[in-house]
Amino acid sequence: MAELSKTSGIPVATIKFYLRERLLPAGERTGPNQSRYGEQHLRRLRLIRGLLDVGGLSVASARGVIDAVDSELPLAHSFGVAQRAVSADIDPGGMDPEALAGIDRLVEGWRVSADNPGRLAAARVLETFNALGQRDDRDWFSRYAAAALLVAEADLDLVEARGSREAMAETVVIGTVLGDALFSGLRRAAQEHVSALRHPVPFEPVRAPAKEQECP
Amino acid sequence: MAELSKTSGIPVATIKFYLRERLLPAGERTGPNQSRYGEQHLRRLRLIRGLLDVGGLSVASARGVIDAVDSELPLAHSFGVAQRAVSADIDPGGMDPEALAGIDRLVEGWRVSADNPGRLAAARVLETFNALGQRDDRDWFSRYAAAALLVAEADLDLVEARGSREAMAETVVIGTVLGDALFSGLRRAAQEHVSALRHPVPFEPVRAPAKEQECP
Repeated sequence: MAELSKTSGIPVATIKFYLRERLLPAGERTGPNQSRYGEQHLRRLRLIRGLLDVGGLSVASARGVIDAVDSELPLAHSFGVAQRAVSADIDPGGMDPEALAGIDRLVEGWRVSADNPGRLAAARVLETFNALGQRDDRDWFSRYAAAALLVAEADLDLVEARGSREAMAETVVIGTVLGDALFSGLRRAAQEHVSALRHPVPFEPVRAPAKEQECP
Repeated sequence: MAELSKTSGIPVATIKFYLRERLLPAGERTGPNQSRYGEQHLRRLRLIRGLLDVGGLSVASARGVIDAVDSELPLAHSFGVAQRAVSADIDPGGMDPEALAGIDRLVEGWRVSADNPGRLAAARVLETFNALGQRDDRDWFSRYAAAALLVAEADLDLVEARGSREAMAETVVIGTVLGDALFSGLRRAAQEHVSALRHPVPFEPVRAPAKEQECP
């Protein structure tokens, strides 16, 4: 275990905690006070850190994802579990049925289950958009849906390029959490770009190396 | 003021607070204890609520956005102010210059300033992606950038369809905050759809009206 801790950079006490919480499978017993840990334990540790630190999951949710990875269920199932675990829990009760119907019309033809967390989150946005007196701009919503489809294709390609269920689940969790942040970042950059193209203003392009940008 | 409160649904004490904080311009004085408030005050109140409640801005940041709306500066400037106000503040110091360079290569040809909050947020994601041992999948990042450009075009079209600077700023703020949530929701729905297409599993499509879905 001391070696596993050294290789992974994770303290022994933390590894023991993961073992107790059944996040990490026990090593192969080789003596009264000795166990062997292999490559699979290292990979599992990386998945656990991804779930807890990047995904911000509770230990219980992380265990749910790990159980799904270890199960013989189809990949789409463990994908769904991982996706749900890192998505905000939205209570569909009390949600405006019109907003839900609006999102269902928007993604008509998509195979989306009723409790997909994204369906509910999108309906919540439509609800807020309407409550704030923004015109429900169908065109804006449709173009978002088309772009989301492109991104989801890229997500699935990334996941499928991984070799093992473990690596796939890791990529689902990391990709779902980081993908949100990546997209919203690139969207802001793209907004500045499109805005500058349409409404030219004096502009300093990014060309200097990062070091020089820090000087006043 | 009582009437403005009634029409807007915002308590008089809150309106007085907005006046003191210079978020709302004073009404036209018509008597010792009486002022006239017009349509522009109602619109401004809606913008203030959007900034504080949806955007989660501090009063100081909201005043920054409102000052930009009221200024004679080009629209792209107030767009930038509103966009920055609702974006997480990321300190570029200590960021891996390689990650920043990676994002700059990704958006090569885009007119993006060095301190664009999205550029920094995307670089932070690339940094984390690499630190977690995920392969820096150029293809995944490029497809995100392409989709972000489509969405930014839709955003600008939505903003430009608004009639006044006030309404435009309101849409920038609301669209930036809600757009993040909308896209991540639609992405999750699209992931389920693409996943179901590629890896068919027994599946119940969403077709029943919302009411029936609540029954067990």
